[in-house]
Amino acid sequence: MERLPSWRDSDARDAILRFVDRVTDPASPDFVSVEKRIAVFDNDGTLLAEQPIYIQTLYSIERLRDRLLAEPELAREQPFAGARDGDFAAISATGIPGHLRLFGEATSGMSFEELDRDVRAWFKSARHPETGVMLSSLVYQPMLEVLAFLRQHQFQCWLITGSSVDFLRIFAPLLYDIPAERIAGSELTLSTRYGADGLEVVRGWECSLINDGPEKVISIMRHIGGRPIAAFGNSDGDVPMLEWVESGNGPRLSVLIHHTDAAREWAYDRDSDIGRLSRGLDLDADGRFIRADMACDWARIFPA
Amino acid sequence: MERLPSWRDSDARDAILRFVDRVTDPASPDFVSVEKRIAVFDNDGTLLAEQPIYIQTLYSIERLRDRLLAEPELAREQPFAGARDGDFAAISATGIPGHLRLFGEATSGMSFEELDRDVRAWFKSARHPETGVMLSSLVYQPMLEVLAFLRQHQFQCWLITGSSVDFLRIFAPLLYDIPAERIAGSELTLSTRYGADGLEVVRGWECSLINDGPEKVISIMRHIGGRPIAAFGNSDGDVPMLEWVESGNGPRLSVLIHHTDAAREWAYDRDSDIGRLSRGLDLDADGRFIRADMACDWARIFPA
Repeated sequence: MERLPSWRDSDARDAILRFVDRVTDPASPDFVSVEKRIAVFDNDGTLLAEQPIYIQTLYSIERLRDRLLAEPELAREQPFAGARDGDFAAISATGIPGHLRLFGEATSGMSFEELDRDVRAWFKSARHPETGVMLSSLVYQPMLEVLAFLRQHQFQCWLITGSSVDFLRIFAPLLYDIPAERIAGSELTLSTRYGADGLEVVRGWECSLINDGPEKVISIMRHIGGRPIAAFGNSDGDVPMLEWVESGNGPRLSVLIHHTDAAREWAYDRDSDIGRLSRGLDLDADGRFIRADMACDWARIFPA
Repeated sequence: MERLPSWRDSDARDAILRFVDRVTDPASPDFVSVEKRIAVFDNDGTLLAEQPIYIQTLYSIERLRDRLLAEPELAREQPFAGARDGDFAAISATGIPGHLRLFGEATSGMSFEELDRDVRAWFKSARHPETGVMLSSLVYQPMLEVLAFLRQHQFQCWLITGSSVDFLRIFAPLLYDIPAERIAGSELTLSTRYGADGLEVVRGWECSLINDGPEKVISIMRHIGGRPIAAFGNSDGDVPMLEWVESGNGPRLSVLIHHTDAAREWAYDRDSDIGRLSRGLDLDADGRFIRADMACDWARIFPA
């Protein structure tokens, strides 16, 4: 069976295959024991499409729609005005904190169980705002193959996302087969209280952790407790994680996914508010990372 | 082979065995799928002896010794004066925040790698301040058997500790075979900077999370993302976690370990600054939890 069949024969594909061979061959000087085979993945733009706006934000807008019409004062500022008007550019100009503000406002007070039911129901029929395809079909087939290939070689695969961990934990297990406990993301405040069913955890609206940039490295130490040997990302917010993984001792794999395919997906980097990639390209000028060029290296982008 | 051989034939042992049989028998109406078989354990006083003071604090005192003599102003207040004088009662009167202050002061600025080497070296020869036995021999044999029994039945076992996660991640994998990523504890602040080896994570001295009481429940949601079906604890700081696990739907096991054996271990509950158990006993007056009475229920306490 061909390995990573949706990848074209390319330097990136070779680098991934060679890395996995080196660290899993017991005869190799670079052999890594199973418990240290840890790979981390960004979500939006790395495992699935993030244009024109994050899936979490599409959900937040949908949930806030009625309130934004009923409470005009809520929509007086950004990102709420953008949410009311469907102005994605205005929302994205507020950055990841703005996206999380929308999500916090849309879901605070919902229990984890309520959120789970609601997101699942929504996701079953949610469609892309431009192309109309099911959101669940926007996952990248080449990356599903990387996940499967790494797991087959006994890697632990973790999701380290700037989106809310509460949101990702609902659909990531379905899309990628990554379990809830291997997902770290941005966080809303949590508190506890005694209710009708005893002690319960209450979800607040305020963001207590923005899991982007160097925070991703700190999150990995908090959740995993050590430096992974492989990392995949696509934006400047992932670059500290890629640098940190790459500069560890021993064999390392840091893959930077470059959105270059305007025909089959989207082409964007330095000028995009979503998934901006500028510092990463500068750092990679001398080939520091493994660059995966979507247009050149991926034979197929989405599952059939 | 006898199951849980270091447990005497008792209600507690029966309850544990019955629970595991119920949730793992595919024919049982209480069957729980493998991915939901999650058990959480407190560390100090639940998996290993915590009297007269936490192991983390013995290490902190040792590491601070020279500085406390050289810098008298540091020892002007508690818990530092207690650390200088070996006055465990004075330290413990400052509560878990005091213990973490000592640990933060003793280890801030050490990298994770330095801390790892230092704790391992120390732990190899560290002895109990009263009995002189090796600290590593103070783990509870009946609880090692519970861990092994649960794992054998495909449970994920997590450590949810009030001690520093940085400290526990070093010796818990050795003592209990619990991997680093399944340990959540109290946290010191972390930051990142660019050093000679590229991006590095810097350990601060300040405590950013005290993982005790209701915070243990929040920690579980942060790390695991759902309510476990089994919990083991011994102090009031574990009681919210025990209550929360016990009040979930379906089969539940919340075990409260009661230190009743002054001859073989220590006997303490309502009046102890270490591992105080008062509210837990009140709540358990009607048998809400499964009570494990160390004197009555454990045939052996420590490994041979």
